[in-house]
Amino acid sequence: MGKTLGGFAMFSGLRQAELAGLAEIAVRRNFVKGESILVEGDRALGFYLVERGRVKIYKLSPDGKEHILHIIEPGFNFAEACIFFEHDTCPASAEAIENSSLIFFPKDRFLSALEKSASLAMRMLGSMADWVRLMAEQIAGLSLSTVEGRLVSYLVVLARKGEVPFADGVTITLDVEKGVLAARLGTIPETLSRTLKKLQEKGVLRVDRSNLTVLDSEGLLEMLR
Amino acid sequence: MGKTLGGFAMFSGLRQAELAGLAEIAVRRNFVKGESILVEGDRALGFYLVERGRVKIYKLSPDGKEHILHIIEPGFNFAEACIFFEHDTCPASAEAIENSSLIFFPKDRFLSALEKSASLAMRMLGSMADWVRLMAEQIAGLSLSTVEGRLVSYLVVLARKGEVPFADGVTITLDVEKGVLAARLGTIPETLSRTLKKLQEKGVLRVDRSNLTVLDSEGLLEMLR
Repeated sequence: MGKTLGGFAMFSGLRQAELAGLAEIAVRRNFVKGESILVEGDRALGFYLVERGRVKIYKLSPDGKEHILHIIEPGFNFAEACIFFEHDTCPASAEAIENSSLIFFPKDRFLSALEKSASLAMRMLGSMADWVRLMAEQIAGLSLSTVEGRLVSYLVVLARKGEVPFADGVTITLDVEKGVLAARLGTIPETLSRTLKKLQEKGVLRVDRSNLTVLDSEGLLEMLR
Repeated sequence: MGKTLGGFAMFSGLRQAELAGLAEIAVRRNFVKGESILVEGDRALGFYLVERGRVKIYKLSPDGKEHILHIIEPGFNFAEACIFFEHDTCPASAEAIENSSLIFFPKDRFLSALEKSASLAMRMLGSMADWVRLMAEQIAGLSLSTVEGRLVSYLVVLARKGEVPFADGVTITLDVEKGVLAARLGTIPETLSRTLKKLQEKGVLRVDRSNLTVLDSEGLLEMLR
């Protein structure tokens, strides 16, 4: 297990003894597709690494609408913020969207390990900072009122992440499925499909499955106004 | 300075020697009302505590619309996540909304202090976790599409924070000015005023400056649907 853990970004660069200590407290847990892992409002008992599979982190708005905060891919972690909350409750829910193998770290034992290792604490801080950045981007995007605008904003951020310019002829590959993208844009898959179709008909975007080619970057950026 | 620092939540419970070490690297900086402190996309050189005054943390959406993430009151800190980002850039901007006295911690010297003190790292993790929670709440609220719905969602969260039920006759006092609230709901002050007026005319909410009294909780909660 120690060797496995060393391969996770969160634990990279830790000393063998630290990894061995973490391996001792880690518990492997399997979840089938669709199985609930955490429920918003529950007490957080620890946090997870995704070894295999994929996990959806989501929040229900008061009207019961699901809003996806993030999809966790193998190699990444989630719920690490929850173990630091005063009242210990999870601010979001987690569900396996594929059969998944997770590695669980119980809160109290992990906190003890953290207090002994500054390098582990620094990794943890880096990971939490990534969540802050991700959420700040989402908030900026969501404050746009049209689905078109939110979609364009999402594509602009995605292009920046891939370090390609948002310019005519550039193809941007969606990093999530359309259902997930819809939820992240605060809408439903049908509306997203309609929006993509409309943009294609307008001749500003070419849609080929997950590959979106910018045909008229000016026209798209206007939708942000 | 050491004594001053011990009064901040982020540094409470630290040993005298740790506080003295922090005091050595801390720099007091004054900003006048309206002055910019950080600009989104800039390199983050450190983070801040607010000693006096108030600071607005905001993000511009691609269309240039301001979205307020948070208002930092005296005793609290901001931009601590930025110092852990790989590329060091700030994901949001900060501006003094009153004449403010801030305490600045330069990134490199603070990171060295952090590597030496597990208790400081734990405080920092707690602080960052609070940001994660706050943003998760905002994302859930923003995924609602009407300003009415977002306002009701905000009031429900505010009632929960004040540990009062969201029920008829309960008065909820806004924790921010209306201009700030408007931005946080992803709208402009005029639309917020119009929304409040409309709710008052419908007889579901009584508005007395910052005090909002729930008159028809059922009617308000319907707006979330």
